[in-house]
Amino acid sequence: MTSSSSTSSHTAPLRLGIAGLGTVGAGVIRLLNTNADLVTARAGRPLHVTAVSARDRTRDRGVDLSGLRWYENAPDLVADPDVDVVVELIGGSEGTARAVVEAALAAGKPVVTANKALLAIHGPALARLSAEKSAPLLFEAAVAGGIPAIKMVREGLAADRLLRIGGILNGTCNYILTVMRETGKDFGTVLADAQQLGYAEADPSTDIDGLDAAHKLTILAGLAFGRPVAFNSVHVEGIRRIGALDLSFARTLGYRIKLLGMARMGETGLEARVTPCLVPENAPIAQVDGVFNAVVAEGAFAGRLMIEGRGAGAGPTASAVAADLIDIARGHTIPVWGVQATDTPPLQANPVSAGTGAFYLRLLVEDRPGVIADITAVLRDCGVSLRSMLQHTPEQNDADPYVPLVLVTHQTSEAAMQDAVTRIDGLDVVTDTPVMIRIETD
Amino acid sequence: MTSSSSTSSHTAPLRLGIAGLGTVGAGVIRLLNTNADLVTARAGRPLHVTAVSARDRTRDRGVDLSGLRWYENAPDLVADPDVDVVVELIGGSEGTARAVVEAALAAGKPVVTANKALLAIHGPALARLSAEKSAPLLFEAAVAGGIPAIKMVREGLAADRLLRIGGILNGTCNYILTVMRETGKDFGTVLADAQQLGYAEADPSTDIDGLDAAHKLTILAGLAFGRPVAFNSVHVEGIRRIGALDLSFARTLGYRIKLLGMARMGETGLEARVTPCLVPENAPIAQVDGVFNAVVAEGAFAGRLMIEGRGAGAGPTASAVAADLIDIARGHTIPVWGVQATDTPPLQANPVSAGTGAFYLRLLVEDRPGVIADITAVLRDCGVSLRSMLQHTPEQNDADPYVPLVLVTHQTSEAAMQDAVTRIDGLDVVTDTPVMIRIETD
Repeated sequence: MTSSSSTSSHTAPLRLGIAGLGTVGAGVIRLLNTNADLVTARAGRPLHVTAVSARDRTRDRGVDLSGLRWYENAPDLVADPDVDVVVELIGGSEGTARAVVEAALAAGKPVVTANKALLAIHGPALARLSAEKSAPLLFEAAVAGGIPAIKMVREGLAADRLLRIGGILNGTCNYILTVMRETGKDFGTVLADAQQLGYAEADPSTDIDGLDAAHKLTILAGLAFGRPVAFNSVHVEGIRRIGALDLSFARTLGYRIKLLGMARMGETGLEARVTPCLVPENAPIAQVDGVFNAVVAEGAFAGRLMIEGRGAGAGPTASAVAADLIDIARGHTIPVWGVQATDTPPLQANPVSAGTGAFYLRLLVEDRPGVIADITAVLRDCGVSLRSMLQHTPEQNDADPYVPLVLVTHQTSEAAMQDAVTRIDGLDVVTDTPVMIRIETD
Repeated sequence: MTSSSSTSSHTAPLRLGIAGLGTVGAGVIRLLNTNADLVTARAGRPLHVTAVSARDRTRDRGVDLSGLRWYENAPDLVADPDVDVVVELIGGSEGTARAVVEAALAAGKPVVTANKALLAIHGPALARLSAEKSAPLLFEAAVAGGIPAIKMVREGLAADRLLRIGGILNGTCNYILTVMRETGKDFGTVLADAQQLGYAEADPSTDIDGLDAAHKLTILAGLAFGRPVAFNSVHVEGIRRIGALDLSFARTLGYRIKLLGMARMGETGLEARVTPCLVPENAPIAQVDGVFNAVVAEGAFAGRLMIEGRGAGAGPTASAVAADLIDIARGHTIPVWGVQATDTPPLQANPVSAGTGAFYLRLLVEDRPGVIADITAVLRDCGVSLRSMLQHTPEQNDADPYVPLVLVTHQTSEAAMQDAVTRIDGLDVVTDTPVMIRIETD
């Protein structure tokens, strides 16, 4: 038995307390058992789970939990003297998860977490606590699951000035958009199928309304630009309003539709948004389909990089959590934002209306002469110039008085575009809310 | 002046000696100047270049070298007491580059290098020296330029058991194959154009014969499997024999042709080869075009990951070198193969004939009845079963008595395939050496 030996020795086991035994928590235990020799060799010391915390003691989690100390109240696990490192896998930005992480850092114990909401919302405060207490806070699994995106940005690109960071950060949305494109089915049908298959939650709003991607983007942007980003300043749109029609039009135009989280640092400050985007069909990110995630980074020296892989699931997430644990065992820990935390307030992203872009606009309009003239007049009045237009020819015996009309703009100010859309929405000849989608070309 | 202050302090500057001032050496100096504040913040201390070494003192390298000590003989730079870390950017597996790296490690000084040939060939001995002298040896820039592939494998996937590693490891070959596919031009023409554009060396053999990719694969495989791999056991083929015809046939069959380095660890041991491959046109790696590189890794827990970006060039390479320097400044260094070096001899890859695969076989055959029967009889006799066949219909007034014939096999033993190709090559009806290309489907 070595579990009570001093942790100051670099070959003594690193003793872990795991708070949360859902699929990820069980996955971490399974990985540490399966790969024990390999992990010990790479960490330079064994990683032993000594304590766990979860509510239901009776549930079969498919891993052997015998001999582990069990805490029903997760914060109690933090105080266990045989726990050197706390692994928080409960989730959620408040409640027990937050209490456990704060208690561990306050006690000077390193924390590994997969909790994106917690980091996005309380990252600035947790980073300060981590620095004050010299208690490392690692969170590779919080962004893009098994993909070492955080390591890529915070260490691999540490010497470069990053111009942008982002990507496909939510596997549920990417799966739904991929299936919609491939099958032509509508959003509701594909969502219901995804829920049946376990790719979407019973309450899917965190995923499909873009919140989960915004959590991850907030974290990535903080790492890329070396200081925390205010989560509430990130613009968030989800994918509910994307129709099968839009995926079909996008294809006709040579694009695919992806939910992208993207942050750019420019001369006027930070742009940070989660929105559905049209991306050219031959762009690398357009090829990332199904539940896969991808993170794109662009550095002044390194150029454009993309890393893709599984953004969720027990195995990939466990791999990321355990890699963080090896870093802790090796003594390789880095301040949360890659530089020592200061009291600088979080960076505010500019309102999206201050930006520019090219846009896809899909309308449902009355099928009669003069309609296009009315709509293009509004765009002209708002200073928005058109690059192309697509009109859907109705079926011969289609009685629907409305037909879809797609307009693609040149680069324009987003404020002008929003103004134009509001005015177009008010035209009598237009039914339904117009669908406006940003075009990302790089 | 702080250049003489003690290096034991963690805020004292880290003093660098750069051996080799080609485009990469100058790029590193440019990056450290341009990004000085950012690098200092991330490293926790300034990175100062104090000494350089190159033969020609008079050449304008576009960076300010005033105030730096100059050594004409690179190994002398190692002994400079104001050099804490030696950056080797001379290149080549022998001669000065090797002498500088060995001298630095022997003196207990950390080394950062971009030298793939040196690491591939002398990695096992250098890893032992590094361990004996506790002198870190970092080489992120040696594989895939600005892409943090080494960090991804050795740290990001440290907790996982890797099943395979590899990818598009040579930008020159990928550029040539991309242009051949896009333009239909033949290998020689595209190579000459690439040489004019600076994408291929005057003596291109290290790149186009697959040696450079094999160096990188040897390094990646050593990291992935936690022990050095014998460079000489890696099977190497280049792209000289690929014709414009093959790229066109590949397209017809739904594939693209890429030079892949791929290593797999299976029950029978290590498979490691650099060969042109057909990859399905919708596979992520098929989309990586031009001078871009991509590294694919597959872990038992993490699943498949791919990282792509610029594999060469002053900026990307400088970014990788400087990231290594930040790791050294942070005190984050790892044994060469990710685990403490031992005296275990390097791992030998199995001969390729011991493996299996599916293959594309392109022949030039006489255009007369019975030829296909003769060829398919050989395949049948060798136990190779066919999946499909493509015959090029000759132009109406084409006087050439030979026509191309393409055969695609099911999974088969590579030994059987080699046997079949030798016999087919011996048939009177076949002219030119048959072109056999492996099909990679995952």
